[in-house]
Amino acid sequence: MIIGKVVGNVFSTRKCQSLVGYKLLVIKPLFGNKDDFFVAADTLGAGIGECVLVTTDNTTQYALDRQAPIDAIVVGIIDEEPQLEG
Amino acid sequence: MIIGKVVGNVFSTRKCQSLVGYKLLVIKPLFGNKDDFFVAADTLGAGIGECVLVTTDNTTQYALDRQAPIDAIVVGIIDEEPQLEG
Amino acid sequence: MIIGKVVGNVFSTRKCQSLVGYKLLVIKPLFGNKDDFFVAADTLGAGIGECVLVTTDNTTQYALDRQAPIDAIVVGIIDEEPQLEG
Amino acid sequence: MIIGKVVGNVFSTRKCQSLVGYKLLVIKPLFGNKDDFFVAADTLGAGIGECVLVTTDNTTQYALDRQAPIDAIVVGIIDEEPQLEG
Amino acid sequence: MIIGKVVGNVFSTRKCQSLVGYKLLVIKPLFGNKDDFFVAADTLGAGIGECVLVTTDNTTQYALDRQAPIDAIVVGIIDEEPQLEG
Repeated sequence: MIIGKVVGNVFSTRKCQSLVGYKLLVIKPLFGNKDDFFVAADTLGAGIGECVLVTTDNTTQYALDRQAPIDAIVVGIIDEEPQLEG
Repeated sequence: MIIGKVVGNVFSTRKCQSLVGYKLLVIKPLFGNKDDFFVAADTLGAGIGECVLVTTDNTTQYALDRQAPIDAIVVGIIDEEPQLEG
Repeated sequence: MIIGKVVGNVFSTRKCQSLVGYKLLVIKPLFGNKDDFFVAADTLGAGIGECVLVTTDNTTQYALDRQAPIDAIVVGIIDEEPQLEG
Repeated sequence: MIIGKVVGNVFSTRKCQSLVGYKLLVIKPLFGNKDDFFVAADTLGAGIGECVLVTTDNTTQYALDRQAPIDAIVVGIIDEEPQLEG
Repeated sequence: MIIGKVVGNVFSTRKCQSLVGYKLLVIKPLFGNKDDFFVAADTLGAGIGECVLVTTDNTTQYALDRQAPIDAIVVGIIDEEPQLEG
């Protein structure tokens, strides 16, 4: 999974019916290429500035009530940035 | 998902039968490596210059009527480029 | 999907039984990191120098008659290199 | 699969119900871009500083008792860093 | 698929039960970022120094007798390094 910070919202009026009801967040990765922003769906209520855990690819489907064309979804809100050792 | 701008069309006469009927768009990513153009299928009617939201991998199948060998598909047309904070 | 040029053939005598019968092509991406050559299976008869459209990951299975351990397959032969705008 | 070193723990109080019970580890890749830290679930009891083998994408599901939105999971603890030849 | 050279073995005593019986090889990619070593399972008997064809993600499952948390597997041993044109 990817740890990232919520840095924006995405609004789309013309979209797939199966995306209706999901918040769409712009995520800035905490590690690796930090300019590699991407969009994740959210049902946990993450807000701008919060650190979140995002799962990707088809594993997103196990966090959804029904199948949807979503390849990244917030699965957790991080309590605090992890302390790294080594 | 990836936010990108539609910068071209792809035409293919000899192709898999299951791709017939889809528009094929060249997408330029808005974030990350912007030279990393890729091709997404489209059923929403996105035009050149529009910003779109694209889902990838097997999750594309949930935006299709029938299964097809498509690993990127437009799932939304973005109202405006997102404002980013932090 | 990825647009690339066919630049070589791969021959493998010792291989999985389920790969028998597929042509294996070396593909040079047209965009992004052009040194990032990869191998795609082909059933459309693409030849050296042709531009092709390749789908990846598990979506390859929807272009196959039977399931096979193939993570990239040619799904179209491009009529001409796309004209890009913007 | 990816070989990496465990360098941290991730704590998340607000998370998907299906993630409850998994340890979440920050993994530093041993090869490639070593700054490209990511998070993997763990059920084998890997500790800080240990080298682990991680599988990704939907193949994680075959290491789980029940389906969960997890795109990286520890599948082995490496006896020692591999000796590389050539 | 990826073409790579076998450069090492990985040994793991504590691992998922479903990985027992697979050889685990360190693979050095022949193209792209050659430092981006990764681990692939093998059932074809590839040896150190041999060039192999590796499939990834969930498509690995079609090369297995039973489902396993393996995201890269050797599907062929290459007869010789491919000659590239153009």
